Amino acid sequence: MTDQRTDVLISEVGPRDGLQSIGTIMPLAAKKAWIAAEAAAGVTEIEVGSFVPPKLLPQLADTAEVVAFAKTIPGLTVAVLVPNARGAEAAIAAGADKITLPLSVSETHSLANLRRTHAQVIDEARTIAALIAALPADRRPHFEGSLSTAFGCTLEGAIPDAQIARLAESLMTAGCDEVGLSDTTGFADPSAVRRLIRLVRGVAGDAALTGIHLHNTRGLGLANVLAALDCGLTTFDASLGGLGGCPFAPGASGNIVTEDLAFMLEAMGLRTGIDLDRLTAVRTIVADALPGEPLYGFLPDAGLPLGFRPATSLAA
Amino acid sequence: MTDQRTDVLISEVGPRDGLQSIGTIMPLAAKKAWIAAEAAAGVTEIEVGSFVPPKLLPQLADTAEVVAFAKTIPGLTVAVLVPNARGAEAAIAAGADKITLPLSVSETHSLANLRRTHAQVIDEARTIAALIAALPADRRPHFEGSLSTAFGCTLEGAIPDAQIARLAESLMTAGCDEVGLSDTTGFADPSAVRRLIRLVRGVAGDAALTGIHLHNTRGLGLANVLAALDCGLTTFDASLGGLGGCPFAPGASGNIVTEDLAFMLEAMGLRTGIDLDRLTAVRTIVADALPGEPLYGFLPDAGLPLGFRPATSLAA
Repeated sequence: MTDQRTDVLISEVGPRDGLQSIGTIMPLAAKKAWIAAEAAAGVTEIEVGSFVPPKLLPQLADTAEVVAFAKTIPGLTVAVLVPNARGAEAAIAAGADKITLPLSVSETHSLANLRRTHAQVIDEARTIAALIAALPADRRPHFEGSLSTAFGCTLEGAIPDAQIARLAESLMTAGCDEVGLSDTTGFADPSAVRRLIRLVRGVAGDAALTGIHLHNTRGLGLANVLAALDCGLTTFDASLGGLGGCPFAPGASGNIVTEDLAFMLEAMGLRTGIDLDRLTAVRTIVADALPGEPLYGFLPDAGLPLGFRPATSLAA
Repeated sequence: MTDQRTDVLISEVGPRDGLQSIGTIMPLAAKKAWIAAEAAAGVTEIEVGSFVPPKLLPQLADTAEVVAFAKTIPGLTVAVLVPNARGAEAAIAAGADKITLPLSVSETHSLANLRRTHAQVIDEARTIAALIAALPADRRPHFEGSLSTAFGCTLEGAIPDAQIARLAESLMTAGCDEVGLSDTTGFADPSAVRRLIRLVRGVAGDAALTGIHLHNTRGLGLANVLAALDCGLTTFDASLGGLGGCPFAPGASGNIVTEDLAFMLEAMGLRTGIDLDRLTAVRTIVADALPGEPLYGFLPDAGLPLGFRPATSLAA
């Protein structure tokens, strides 16, 4: 998903994963301003919402309108989450570029989160793949199956590797273009990241695993990114200000912070395409729209090191 | 410095680096309780103070008494910082097991911090090495020269690699047993960590660089640990609760958090010898002795993952 001018892709998930975990409902106008400002800062993929029943997540009830707006931004990949084929239909109708279906490798968590067994979720994946295949080639969204709670579940604990491998294979067989690894619960550590990347690539192929969704619940978020980078992954989810988490996994708060992630990658000489100052300035929009909601991040407090030269600016 | 039952050494620097950066003076009794409790949790090396003029750092004026107490704890390596040969004399008299002399690779910072040019600090190193060599073999402390501001300086910015290499070589020639890399300012990133480790090992030899002192100023502390681990380093400084920083490097606050570091290493299957629950309980001692002082760390808030099995317990 990276173009010739970038080495890594940061996928902003704040408008979905961030907003779904907090009580306050962000007004549509603020969502638009956030997405527009972050795209203007150089972020080229944003997960803008989730097609779930509004009763479950009223924060994301306006996802169709958000997608329609985001689609007007040139060069932006507009991603959405869907819990099932009905959500995928809505996502396709709205014109989403990328559709992610989460499959919790913990069946207990799957039942709690999506109210579905593994077999039922795989069926949904198959139906979604068929919906997409029926579209004209130039209108087909990218379809990712995301292995959530891959690093352990707050209800079940560790999940056997064999079960994760089997589910990754099932998602690919069902017709996903790609699988992703998701540390829904913040249980991951760098060794586990490396082990699961090797495991999933072993069954799905290297090209079928390029991205990872990490949380910073126990402070290891960026170390886990480094482990994944070393394995060749190129797409990293993050949330502006570290907003968000998973409302169905108690204690599992805290996406990695987009600003800190972008800083680390740029400092390492990896081009993200993002302007760090403009990115940090986007916090004001989120803070103003969500009064009292804490925002996280080290870079915004510490500022850039003296003489810092981001990789992206060097390439320009 | 690791024994057969451990894979990595966490060197607690809170009683020195933590306390020197805050205004409140911790009473001697609290320092003793902190050190004793952390040693009981399995920490085998603690930097307990600094032999600097009490006028400069009244927080550390009782370092000789702290060393004397720490020396009564079986199996504990008692480390101290010294700014010069006079400090080293006091450290030797007190019976310290390990003496660290910082040499700021930024000469501007060296003048501000130690009030000495590079040549003057190297002279001090030579004098200290001679003092140590004159001792009976079984009473000689380990002598480390620490390359501070190695990843950049808040006054000078980036320091040329050639200058860092030259200073590392000079410290070894002056008689240091070892050199260390210190990210005094929190400017390090994983690529820079790897580059400087290769650089210093290239001039000083692999055996002469085993440890690194990292800060978490911009949130990259544990990612930088991972980079250093991958290069084969085995000793990592950290501060309980992330207490501390460098009072002479503005904006450079925040050691990496001992609790989070120990959790990451144990999760990765590396034995630290530390009991995470007992370590986290030590926070109470520090918090009670320093009312109002913020303590940091993710693990203490999030707790251990469900079903977590630390490497150290598995080995026991």
